[in-house]
Amino acid sequence: MNHKLILQYLGKVLSLLAAFMLLPLLVSLVNGDLIEARGFVFTILMLMAVGIPLGRLKASTTKLYAKEGFIIVAVSWLALSFFGALPFYFSGAIPSFIDCLFETVSGFTTTGASILRDVESLSPGILLWRSFTHWIGGMGVLIFLMAIIPAVAGDRALHLLKAESPGHDPGKLVPKMHQTSMLLYVIYLVLTVVEILLLLAGGMSPFHSIITAMGTASTGGFSSMNASIAGFNSLYCEIVVAVFMFLFGINFNIFYLLFIRRLTGALKNEELRVYFGVVVAAIALITINLTGTTYPTVGQSLRYAAFQVCSYITTTGFFSITQMNWPLFSRMILLALMFFGGCSGSTAGGLKISRIVIVWKEIRRALFQIIHPRSVEIVKLDGKAVDKGLVHGVCVYFCLCIFLFFSSLFIVSLDNMDVETTVSAVASCLNNVGAALGKVGPGGNYADFSPLSKGVLAFNMLLGRLELYPLLLLISPRTWRTV
Amino acid sequence: MNHKLILQYLGKVLSLLAAFMLLPLLVSLVNGDLIEARGFVFTILMLMAVGIPLGRLKASTTKLYAKEGFIIVAVSWLALSFFGALPFYFSGAIPSFIDCLFETVSGFTTTGASILRDVESLSPGILLWRSFTHWIGGMGVLIFLMAIIPAVAGDRALHLLKAESPGHDPGKLVPKMHQTSMLLYVIYLVLTVVEILLLLAGGMSPFHSIITAMGTASTGGFSSMNASIAGFNSLYCEIVVAVFMFLFGINFNIFYLLFIRRLTGALKNEELRVYFGVVVAAIALITINLTGTTYPTVGQSLRYAAFQVCSYITTTGFFSITQMNWPLFSRMILLALMFFGGCSGSTAGGLKISRIVIVWKEIRRALFQIIHPRSVEIVKLDGKAVDKGLVHGVCVYFCLCIFLFFSSLFIVSLDNMDVETTVSAVASCLNNVGAALGKVGPGGNYADFSPLSKGVLAFNMLLGRLELYPLLLLISPRTWRTV
Repeated sequence: MNHKLILQYLGKVLSLLAAFMLLPLLVSLVNGDLIEARGFVFTILMLMAVGIPLGRLKASTTKLYAKEGFIIVAVSWLALSFFGALPFYFSGAIPSFIDCLFETVSGFTTTGASILRDVESLSPGILLWRSFTHWIGGMGVLIFLMAIIPAVAGDRALHLLKAESPGHDPGKLVPKMHQTSMLLYVIYLVLTVVEILLLLAGGMSPFHSIITAMGTASTGGFSSMNASIAGFNSLYCEIVVAVFMFLFGINFNIFYLLFIRRLTGALKNEELRVYFGVVVAAIALITINLTGTTYPTVGQSLRYAAFQVCSYITTTGFFSITQMNWPLFSRMILLALMFFGGCSGSTAGGLKISRIVIVWKEIRRALFQIIHPRSVEIVKLDGKAVDKGLVHGVCVYFCLCIFLFFSSLFIVSLDNMDVETTVSAVASCLNNVGAALGKVGPGGNYADFSPLSKGVLAFNMLLGRLELYPLLLLISPRTWRTV
Repeated sequence: MNHKLILQYLGKVLSLLAAFMLLPLLVSLVNGDLIEARGFVFTILMLMAVGIPLGRLKASTTKLYAKEGFIIVAVSWLALSFFGALPFYFSGAIPSFIDCLFETVSGFTTTGASILRDVESLSPGILLWRSFTHWIGGMGVLIFLMAIIPAVAGDRALHLLKAESPGHDPGKLVPKMHQTSMLLYVIYLVLTVVEILLLLAGGMSPFHSIITAMGTASTGGFSSMNASIAGFNSLYCEIVVAVFMFLFGINFNIFYLLFIRRLTGALKNEELRVYFGVVVAAIALITINLTGTTYPTVGQSLRYAAFQVCSYITTTGFFSITQMNWPLFSRMILLALMFFGGCSGSTAGGLKISRIVIVWKEIRRALFQIIHPRSVEIVKLDGKAVDKGLVHGVCVYFCLCIFLFFSSLFIVSLDNMDVETTVSAVASCLNNVGAALGKVGPGGNYADFSPLSKGVLAFNMLLGRLELYPLLLLISPRTWRTV
């Protein structure tokens, strides 16, 4: 293991985090919140004190192997979580440090699970930092580094992209890593800005628009209102947010294809079509289930179904209703959507549509193989054969996800809450959703969990955001054994 | 597809079922229940009318391929379920036919889920038939055919064994299929008789002993008492049943090895050791969790923990406490144990320990592969390499199980019960447990589910008992397409 190289990347990440913190610091200063500003300054100084020397380390070789890629990402995200939590602690906005950590991990991983009972009482600077962590975490901090420092995007940086970005097989948009990262961030930024403008056009204040757009773009879900999107009480805003949640659940490659006018290529994308189909089917089923039982009209049912489906499948976690007394069938669909997640290469969490499609096709193939043992049928995606090793890897990923889900469930169930709350809280954190069902459903929060459960849930968020392997490799003794 | 061959096997299975029904018919006659006896006679005549002509069909080739093996098993089990339900219906013991079917499927698949609110009011003949279906289904009806008719155990009959017996890779005890089947049934019968004798020694009546032993041997769980084993109010009986539940969760190969005095070979078996470890760990964790919170003493906690752990992991579903107000942690462990199941080659349901061990090792291997991309580590079981294709097949099986679980969950959740009841009912039926949690926990029953849910749950029981593939192949259009 190339320790110096890992520390060097870590140093750069920390310096970058210091730069990111200038924005909320500015807001704090403008608002005259001096204690809060002091908290940001302290954190920035600490980040620089650690980050700059580490960033200047010279590794004997800069060759980056897969294992270093995974470890750099894991270490960086743990460090981000720790330092990112400090402003909450120093400013006194969140008194307990474990709660600060929970909120920060939830931010960076774009989960959006909160321990705060009253978001509206937070100051603008802290609120902005909270949502900014979403935006930074959505596309990834190492990808940002690659976008701004061409040298970082050098030899074998694809390993970093693979370790940090979601999906079973993150590809490059263009041959050069530096340009790929830049393009990803440009698309991300442009879409965010468009959403801000549309929200402004609907009469939302600039501050709320920025916070809401950051929560949407990252599919995070932190809101500036206690009642989430329902707090704005505007059908227009609900529609804008729902549409953008849906858009941010799409693979960014598609936007690039649209940008270079390859419309047919974009529309032929199989994952996109399945994603669209699942969203439509889920909205239809829930609307039928709700009409008459929960809401009197089809229109009302459709409105709430559509928003919540877009929110859960993209793992955003915004909500547009304060109480969710839906029938079990609709709640179970939302629970399943959490695991679905959006498309690979989007900012959404969950297993990702492409993985589910691959597993589904592999199951069909396995059945077919029993009837025709000598057949050589293979799994195809977008008309192209998927490598057998990759198919197997996706199946293993699925199994691993179930193992981790059950292991976490045991520990969180020590808090002795009801089954719905416990199961959905773990599912929600592992899939980076945030809102769940039961006591942690819309309007609820994670404050009542024990510190142990909060730790496990935060660990689950990191596992989910980094797609399991980086963190598991970090804590596995075999990684550090010299062979 | 060799239709004549399939029908010929089906005919033999139905004739065998007619023979099996002579036993409960005798009991009905001895008890003077003439309406009931008439029901059995009607059913036997119907079985013979269909079974004998079909059994005499001559197929142009008797060569049995894998697909025919699966289809024969699927068709036979569906037919068993239908005809097996008739005595319940004809005798009026269960008024609704869907309930009769549910109870019979639950019997043959050794699930033990019941729609009956008062078991003790049933007549001895019906009660015996109900539990006898367990005993027949536990080891399998086609394996019984192979044991008694050497000709059936002919060319490629291994496909039938594979399709009907549990586990990822059912092996032969001895080279000849006929002898393997005989040995399996002899072990099964001997262990059942030993349990009956031990229960008799504890003062249980002969009838109750037979019913209880049949429920244990098949890891089924139908009891002659409403309060299951708690109804006997005897620590001695609890211990006997718990020990035998544990024993019937062990691979029958182990008993054969013990019989031919290969003690070290038996004890070295990796699956057995993991099974033992999981049982001990689960009992310990639950005992700690229960002491002080639910029961005042360690002794009492240990007693209930041990019985329930043996019952859930072997997917039997007997219980020794009438109310289960356990903390969530203990309930979640029981829920997870349902999925574990016993060892392959036992009568237990669930995923089976060996599959879980293989998946777990494959996950470790995949992690190791990331650090050492050129490593050629392979998954081993009992010190021997497991074929890569088999490992992959087990992973696919895992994924398929999760897919089916969620699909069923959606449909059953239309009944709008609570999450705990719904989730555990589906898990319980898919894994052939019977007892679950919530409203279908100890003392509860499945009577309140809608006919649709009962159908789905019954289908899940068949899926679980036959290990998914046979039924899925039967209903897949691709199976019947001529290529």
